[in-house]
Amino acid sequence: MKKLQEIAEEISRNTGVVTSAKDVEKILSASASTNHFWEIITLSQKPFPVVAEAVEILRKEGFVAVTEEKEIKFTEKGMEYLKEQNIFPKRTYTCPHCEGRGINLSLLSDLIKKFDEVTEDRPKAISDYDQGFVTTNTTIARIALMAERGDLEGKKLFVLGDDDLVSIAAGLSQMPKEIVVLEIDDRLVDYINRKAKELNLPIEAMKYDFRDKLPEKYIGYFDTFITDPPETVDALELTIGRGISTLKGEGCAGYFGVTLIEASLEKWNIFQQILTSKFKVAITDIIYDFSHYVNWDYLLTTVGKPYDFVQVEPKLNWYRSSMYRIETLKDSKGIENVYKPVEIYVDEEAIIYKGEKK
Amino acid sequence: MKKLQEIAEEISRNTGVVTSAKDVEKILSASASTNHFWEIITLSQKPFPVVAEAVEILRKEGFVAVTEEKEIKFTEKGMEYLKEQNIFPKRTYTCPHCEGRGINLSLLSDLIKKFDEVTEDRPKAISDYDQGFVTTNTTIARIALMAERGDLEGKKLFVLGDDDLVSIAAGLSQMPKEIVVLEIDDRLVDYINRKAKELNLPIEAMKYDFRDKLPEKYIGYFDTFITDPPETVDALELTIGRGISTLKGEGCAGYFGVTLIEASLEKWNIFQQILTSKFKVAITDIIYDFSHYVNWDYLLTTVGKPYDFVQVEPKLNWYRSSMYRIETLKDSKGIENVYKPVEIYVDEEAIIYKGEKK
Repeated sequence: MKKLQEIAEEISRNTGVVTSAKDVEKILSASASTNHFWEIITLSQKPFPVVAEAVEILRKEGFVAVTEEKEIKFTEKGMEYLKEQNIFPKRTYTCPHCEGRGINLSLLSDLIKKFDEVTEDRPKAISDYDQGFVTTNTTIARIALMAERGDLEGKKLFVLGDDDLVSIAAGLSQMPKEIVVLEIDDRLVDYINRKAKELNLPIEAMKYDFRDKLPEKYIGYFDTFITDPPETVDALELTIGRGISTLKGEGCAGYFGVTLIEASLEKWNIFQQILTSKFKVAITDIIYDFSHYVNWDYLLTTVGKPYDFVQVEPKLNWYRSSMYRIETLKDSKGIENVYKPVEIYVDEEAIIYKGEKK
Repeated sequence: MKKLQEIAEEISRNTGVVTSAKDVEKILSASASTNHFWEIITLSQKPFPVVAEAVEILRKEGFVAVTEEKEIKFTEKGMEYLKEQNIFPKRTYTCPHCEGRGINLSLLSDLIKKFDEVTEDRPKAISDYDQGFVTTNTTIARIALMAERGDLEGKKLFVLGDDDLVSIAAGLSQMPKEIVVLEIDDRLVDYINRKAKELNLPIEAMKYDFRDKLPEKYIGYFDTFITDPPETVDALELTIGRGISTLKGEGCAGYFGVTLIEASLEKWNIFQQILTSKFKVAITDIIYDFSHYVNWDYLLTTVGKPYDFVQVEPKLNWYRSSMYRIETLKDSKGIENVYKPVEIYVDEEAIIYKGEKK
């Protein structure tokens, strides 16, 4: 029977993403506790192409079968394999009250209600800019987190890209002194400015492509930034580097989400080296599964075409990211404020199908 | 009136710990929401000497007064200063159900009960080894966290130093295949081995000083390690480097606590550089205030002698640490298995009073 290590090597070869025997074990463990493809990703927290390829291999080996409803079920042969490999179904101990974020949202129920009312007519997520916004609970939890850490009340907040409408939630909280949004999507820029005007919120949104130079006046201007960056190494470095360059000096904070679904731990390590050695910031928090994304309409038309079993509507908000908080130190520095051309959205760990691959 | 920056510089000079205006702001914000010295530390999460020195300066400036009960109260002058500096009382949004850890302990209530029964006669924390054990909820949350991440069930667990008795909790959970404890305190070694024998748990404890070479057979042997290291940079590097060297290869995990009370963010940054660049591991989680320590008997006899206002019994489990989880990658490596002499417990950020300072 195939060894975990052999399966891992086959996945690495077929996807170009470094995969270990333990990664395979985690995918098997997740598959042993759900039949739903998208939940296997949520539970295993491995890159999309890795999970899809793993399931494909397990199917070829006869360890799992895919039903007509595209449920993924272990066969007897597969069950034996689990036992033999000493692999157990994934356990879950997530606090049901805070969805594992550790934050008490009941103190902010008015803000939740108000935000939902105000943003009912928000623009839909579109694939042009790799959009996909988070749940209201996620947005408000971000506000609570920033407020608790002393990064929001009376502060100047910079939101780099805002399909999540964090700026509106922050404005409604009445905590920040000033909020600036730079965003590439005209629809969102207009929407945020209109809401700000209607509701008299201290928000200004402007069109901006993060490859461009930042407006000079914002360098060293803010107390806090928040962003949800695309996940190529270049895009991570550029967005967070720009964010840091907008901060006033030491003791300021940056917040951003990074997934394990479009970024492997190898990529996390490289990015963490950049954060700690090049930017010289301290990582103060990495909160697992903090951000839950509302399923976006364009998912099944853009995703993993080679695998038929992924063509099933997600039953849960399966796409999650970890929340990073960084804090600037005496010697922290961001990147130079010049135009930087980078590949933003796509590398071998991305979820969007690239025809030329495989 | 003194600027925040001036106060920060005075603290840096008097303590030797780099302190920023924002640090001072956080201490003021914490002081504005509690009168209790130890809670100011918990809420501001700044190094003990920094908080103590800050309060001393605020007192000298007439911003706070210390009552006979050693409560720290803002004066009118101090209130004006807060307003002028745009500083607000610290907000707290911690989930009350999970104490902010994000973990549902109700699924493990039997284990909690059993652990408390079994360890009722545990050895007291003593200052010789900088001991101070965590609450039962913390210990069981560690078990849940390791189990959820797939690092416990069917695995070999290494516990480096165990005044928290994590080994016994892990044994009682019946999840690990094998548990090895290396511990410097004979009382604990004997206690853990006795309990293991009585309860038929797969635990072996041995006496060990972490400056010594590890038993060769444990290099590359374990799936998971957990430790609660002393917080000098050298001690952090040595304990975690040894921990990593005991792991089997990629996809293995290490768990450990680091405080902001005995380690500044400058130190966090240096340590994170070591983790990501030297050891080449990925930091997957940093969970704020995960570990709560039971107040230890020797606190007031060893702590901050120069400040009279610290001589007050803590009203809460004020000493907290963040939980780090790291995961090994393809190129991860720990440190060479040789004897390393290092200063373990004391540097300028430590809480224990050193007569020669100030």
